[in-house]
Amino acid sequence: MSIRYLSARLAQQIDDELMNAAGAFSLDQLMELAGLACAQALAKVYGTEKYSRVLVACGPGNQGGDGLVAARHLSMFGYKPTIYMPKPGSKDIYQRLHTQCKNLNITTVTEGEEALRSALKSSDVILDAIFGFSFKGPIRSPFDSALPLLSASGLPIVSVDIPSGWDVEAGNEAGVGLNPDVLISLTAPKEGVRMFTGRHFLGGRFVPRAMEEKFNLNLPAYPTYEQIVDITEATQKL
Amino acid sequence: MSIRYLSARLAQQIDDELMNAAGAFSLDQLMELAGLACAQALAKVYGTEKYSRVLVACGPGNQGGDGLVAARHLSMFGYKPTIYMPKPGSKDIYQRLHTQCKNLNITTVTEGEEALRSALKSSDVILDAIFGFSFKGPIRSPFDSALPLLSASGLPIVSVDIPSGWDVEAGNEAGVGLNPDVLISLTAPKEGVRMFTGRHFLGGRFVPRAMEEKFNLNLPAYPTYEQIVDITEATQKL
Repeated sequence: MSIRYLSARLAQQIDDELMNAAGAFSLDQLMELAGLACAQALAKVYGTEKYSRVLVACGPGNQGGDGLVAARHLSMFGYKPTIYMPKPGSKDIYQRLHTQCKNLNITTVTEGEEALRSALKSSDVILDAIFGFSFKGPIRSPFDSALPLLSASGLPIVSVDIPSGWDVEAGNEAGVGLNPDVLISLTAPKEGVRMFTGRHFLGGRFVPRAMEEKFNLNLPAYPTYEQIVDITEATQKL
Repeated sequence: MSIRYLSARLAQQIDDELMNAAGAFSLDQLMELAGLACAQALAKVYGTEKYSRVLVACGPGNQGGDGLVAARHLSMFGYKPTIYMPKPGSKDIYQRLHTQCKNLNITTVTEGEEALRSALKSSDVILDAIFGFSFKGPIRSPFDSALPLLSASGLPIVSVDIPSGWDVEAGNEAGVGLNPDVLISLTAPKEGVRMFTGRHFLGGRFVPRAMEEKFNLNLPAYPTYEQIVDITEATQKL
C-alpha cells in the first residue's frame, strides 16, 4: 500500500474536516504544528553552523502563516531568520504570528526587488512558504518577479507542501516554479510533487486514524515522538 | 548562572505577558506546544512496548488542557491513553481538545472511585496534569480522594509542572502530594520543585530571549530542534 497523493480538492476537504465542528482543531493549533514541522525539516538538513541565515519567504495565505511559525521556531533553534513578506495576510492570526516574530527581533523585508536581492545575498538557505495547496496560477505580482530571484540566488531551497509556482496537481510542467532541494509535505503529499526527486519529509502528525482510513491516505509511520518523517525512499520508489 | 525557579506570581506574570497583546500568543498555541512537550517527555522515559497504557489525569484548569493535548499526541505516538477527568474545564478550548481526543477513540473516565481504581488497574504509567502553577490548597473533592489512589497504584508517575498536591512554592511539605518519578517543568521550574530528585525535563520552548533576560530565567540550551531538554543534572547540582 503506497502513500496517497492528494488532489487539491481532497487536500482542501481534509483541511476542512480537521477544522469543522466535528474535527474541532483550531487554525492556531494546526498552523503551530505545521510550522514546527517545517522548521524541524529545515534544521534536519541544514545545520546552524553553515546555514544559520534563513530567508523565510511567506505568501499571503495560510502557508505564509506556517512560514511565520517556522521562522519563530527557527529563531528559537538558534538560526537567524529573515522574513520576506511582500503581501502580508489579512487574517488576525497572521498579524499575531508576525508580532511573535518581531518579539524575537526577526527582521521583515516587505517590498522591492532590491531589498529581496540584498536579503538573498546575506542568506544561506531559503524556506519557501509562498504558495500552498490552494494555489492556482498564474503567479501574480510581486511573486512573479520574486520567484526567479529566489531561483537565481543559487541558495538551497526548502519548500513547504508544494514548491511555489508548481501546480498542485500538474507539478512544474510550466517550468516556472522553484526547484527545491528539500520538500516538506504537510498531512500527505500532493499530486503535483510525484516527480519531486529531492529529500522529502512529511509533517502534520495530527490526522486521526479514522480520517486516514476514510481517505485511504496510507500514511507512513513516524519515528517515536517525532513530528516529521523522512519519506524520500518511500516516495521515490513509486 | 543557574536556572531560576519561579514563584507562583512570577509564573503567572510570564504566562500573562506571553498572551497579552504584546506577547501575542494564543492559548491554543501555548497549550499545543506545552502538551506536545509533556507527551514527548513521557515517551522519552516510558516506551510504548512496556508502557503503552497511559492514564492521563486532567484537572479543570489550563493544565488539564495541556493533559488533553498530551493525550492526543500520545495516541498519535502509538500509546493507548485513557483520560481521567472528573471535573472537565468549562473553557471552549477544553471542549475542543476533548473532542479531538474522542475522535481518536480515547476513552474518558469521568467519575467514581471505582472507575478510577479500575482504570488504574489497566494502566502502565500516569501522566499527572491535575494541578498547575495556579494551584492553591486545600485539595478539593474529588481530587482529595483521587490523589491517594494514584499514589497507591504504584504506577510510575510523570507530573506536569508541579506534582499535584504540592504547593507551588513550598513543595510537598504537607506530604499530601504525588511523588512522581519524572517531572516536566513548563517554561521554567517552579520554587516548589527544588527538592524534586527524579528525572526532570523542561518544556515550553517559546519564551522570547528578551523575556528570558527581563526575568533572569537563565534557561538551559535545548538540543537542536527538540521541544524538551533534560535538566536532571542541572537542577540536582543546586
